[in-house]
Amino acid sequence: MVIGGDAAGMSAASQAMRTARGLGRDLDVVVLERGRWTSYSACGIPYWVAGDVPDPDSLVARTPEQHRAAGLDVRTGTEAVEIDLPSSVVHARDGATGRVEHVGFDHLVLAMGAVPIRPDLPGVWAEGVHGLQTLDDGIALLDTLAARGPKRAVVVGAGYIGVEVAEAFCRRGLTTTVVDQAPEPMTTLDPDMGARVHEQMEQMGIDVRTSTTVQGFEVGPDGWVTGVAVAGETLPADVVVLGIGVRPNVALAAAAGLPLGDSGGLRVDRRQAVVGVERVWAAGDCVESFDRVSQTWRHVPLGTHANRQGRVLGTNLAGGYTTFPGIVGTAISKVCDLEIARTGLDERRATASGIAYATGTVESTTIAGYMPGATTMTVKVLAEKGTGRMLGAQIVGQGPGAGKRIDACALALWNEMTADELAMADLAYAPPFSSVWDPVQIAARRAAEAARR
Amino acid sequence: MVIGGDAAGMSAASQAMRTARGLGRDLDVVVLERGRWTSYSACGIPYWVAGDVPDPDSLVARTPEQHRAAGLDVRTGTEAVEIDLPSSVVHARDGATGRVEHVGFDHLVLAMGAVPIRPDLPGVWAEGVHGLQTLDDGIALLDTLAARGPKRAVVVGAGYIGVEVAEAFCRRGLTTTVVDQAPEPMTTLDPDMGARVHEQMEQMGIDVRTSTTVQGFEVGPDGWVTGVAVAGETLPADVVVLGIGVRPNVALAAAAGLPLGDSGGLRVDRRQAVVGVERVWAAGDCVESFDRVSQTWRHVPLGTHANRQGRVLGTNLAGGYTTFPGIVGTAISKVCDLEIARTGLDERRATASGIAYATGTVESTTIAGYMPGATTMTVKVLAEKGTGRMLGAQIVGQGPGAGKRIDACALALWNEMTADELAMADLAYAPPFSSVWDPVQIAARRAAEAARR
Repeated sequence: MVIGGDAAGMSAASQAMRTARGLGRDLDVVVLERGRWTSYSACGIPYWVAGDVPDPDSLVARTPEQHRAAGLDVRTGTEAVEIDLPSSVVHARDGATGRVEHVGFDHLVLAMGAVPIRPDLPGVWAEGVHGLQTLDDGIALLDTLAARGPKRAVVVGAGYIGVEVAEAFCRRGLTTTVVDQAPEPMTTLDPDMGARVHEQMEQMGIDVRTSTTVQGFEVGPDGWVTGVAVAGETLPADVVVLGIGVRPNVALAAAAGLPLGDSGGLRVDRRQAVVGVERVWAAGDCVESFDRVSQTWRHVPLGTHANRQGRVLGTNLAGGYTTFPGIVGTAISKVCDLEIARTGLDERRATASGIAYATGTVESTTIAGYMPGATTMTVKVLAEKGTGRMLGAQIVGQGPGAGKRIDACALALWNEMTADELAMADLAYAPPFSSVWDPVQIAARRAAEAARR
Repeated sequence: MVIGGDAAGMSAASQAMRTARGLGRDLDVVVLERGRWTSYSACGIPYWVAGDVPDPDSLVARTPEQHRAAGLDVRTGTEAVEIDLPSSVVHARDGATGRVEHVGFDHLVLAMGAVPIRPDLPGVWAEGVHGLQTLDDGIALLDTLAARGPKRAVVVGAGYIGVEVAEAFCRRGLTTTVVDQAPEPMTTLDPDMGARVHEQMEQMGIDVRTSTTVQGFEVGPDGWVTGVAVAGETLPADVVVLGIGVRPNVALAAAAGLPLGDSGGLRVDRRQAVVGVERVWAAGDCVESFDRVSQTWRHVPLGTHANRQGRVLGTNLAGGYTTFPGIVGTAISKVCDLEIARTGLDERRATASGIAYATGTVESTTIAGYMPGATTMTVKVLAEKGTGRMLGAQIVGQGPGAGKRIDACALALWNEMTADELAMADLAYAPPFSSVWDPVQIAARRAAEAARR
């Protein structure tokens, strides 16, 4: 029995089925999904809104019908409403009929994902104020855009979703304002790197209001949003998108007495088994993941982790054995041509972890400076004082070719390389691809030198 | 005293000067360079020929004058003709006057680079038959192109230089044929991956003749090349470029009794000191480098290694201490939009090293398949039988964004990761950058599975 039919749940279900078959065993897999979609790319929604992707079906990797054809009993429109662990039963409500069914299980997989944070502010439920987590959220937003022809958009939150939606609005020709209470956008970067994003977004014509707290939403007589109230001012808005983060969807799990970590996510072991509970497993946006760099368990809701954890879970559930090796905190995004990537600890997290660090920053070019098409990129590396161990890296630069360089830094963190060693490693060079010292290597060298001082 | 004023030599000289100053010491550095250029990007020459780069000066990172301003005694047009180790003297001839000077040294740095292989075939010295190693070679080739307006080009050798020059000719509108005796182009790839390059080059309109041995060059009455003779046929040619590799330039060093390895390159230790000889150092295309994957010393003439080794050398020479950690065999190139990259062992080298391997190959897309601009790429991974240790990887795909992914594989090799671990590592994902499982991770997973079978 799997609760949740997106990345984690369906990866788990499919891998459990494959593993069982490989071991010559039978396995009945029931998946309860309250929505009507399975296995879709939530990360692709901003690009659908932007017009890059024609329809929601394009974002669906595998439909319920395809999963059923593969032997999975996928029940869409069916919402789990209670988990009865002692009886090994899940109570599930059919969205169409309202009838509650009692479904027994041998193993239970929790893959309920995350719920978007909607602040308790006046007008937050007005028409035209959208979240953007699910395909149905995307349909609702596109309906608003089509029906109302809005001219002015406000995006609340300048994180990944926020900047991606800002790009989408900008490209659709809307006057776009992004509001965030932090001093700079992209708080998963250090402020000096976030400032570069800020500057570039302004150059794209996006109005970025930082250090700005939203006090409420103004609503017209027809019930539609008309503005976003901030200190001393109202930002006019015909449409609003909230991109202020998510929290693990653990209400059912908590009610069932399952263990939650400090981050609010379900606690799991390396097999993705819920800690201390037999035959209950969890993966994806509802769990905590082990951060190899800070050596702490954190809630990092990303599709990559959901897919990986689901796959690991499925193998173990079905009688195989494998482990999820953890994360290092890699993420990537873009606003128009500006690529933004990060991995590992930023300054704030390093300090909070009690780790003394030095930094090295370089402004360089994506390819050899003398080649046509060379664009500028900034790389910042954090290295541990004394040891020189890589702690983290951040990249802000014009694409193509800037952001994905973070993978080299991520693998350096993964393997606990020193910044010196990364600087000397055998990375690929030819003039159309890099300068002879890759920018990440120059930043690493500078961080290493600073860490010795 | 440094012999050779390109990447390795000038990196060594500059770093030695910096290190000495940092230690509060004086250091007199003399650099003998037989040509008139210093510190230039030989790798950029094909792009200058293609017209991407306006002039040779653009390829010069630092001129002799700039080096002199930094305190280095750079003597261009000065060729070392003999090394007298017992007397600590180098005999050097001034190219202009022919006068031989005797220059004493405390430390000697050998950075003479490599010499292009020119096969002993009839007509190989005809007008219009060009090598392409130095800036002067580039000037000569561009002179030929300007003066003769050739229509038909033949490139001998389908390695990195060969395919890059083929692109340059192709973009200049020449009818271009590439000849190689191997069954597929790019023999640093396995033949199945080379076949993809072959097919794509043909689609670009480049005639690729593989398994074809050049027997000689036909020469007209004016002394200019008119064709390239292969078995049973003459390929008409108004211009020919030889791109059949280089060998370490070690004649002087060998005459001085310095140790050479099996590859023909100078033998050095991890400090870039010549093995067994006091105060003699070497770096760049004239030395062997330690291959961490095959655990052998190899001749791998690449600008990245030259720069890194030179830097390490300079630090050590001047009284610091650091080591060159070796290579894993990473390289990257492109033909028009087709990106080609490799790292580690290919099948042939794995077999020659006595290593049993399995392979995993995937055809995937550079970015999420549903995004506009998604292009196809193929990744092949080699993993060791049993252990699953990563042995090598190869990428052939339409850019941008295909080739530089090899860096993730290179760092996996560097750190002796298993293919399973790479497949589960925290690489960056967002739809404009990757599919949710990066193609290198899918290939790694397949190789890991094959390695267990």
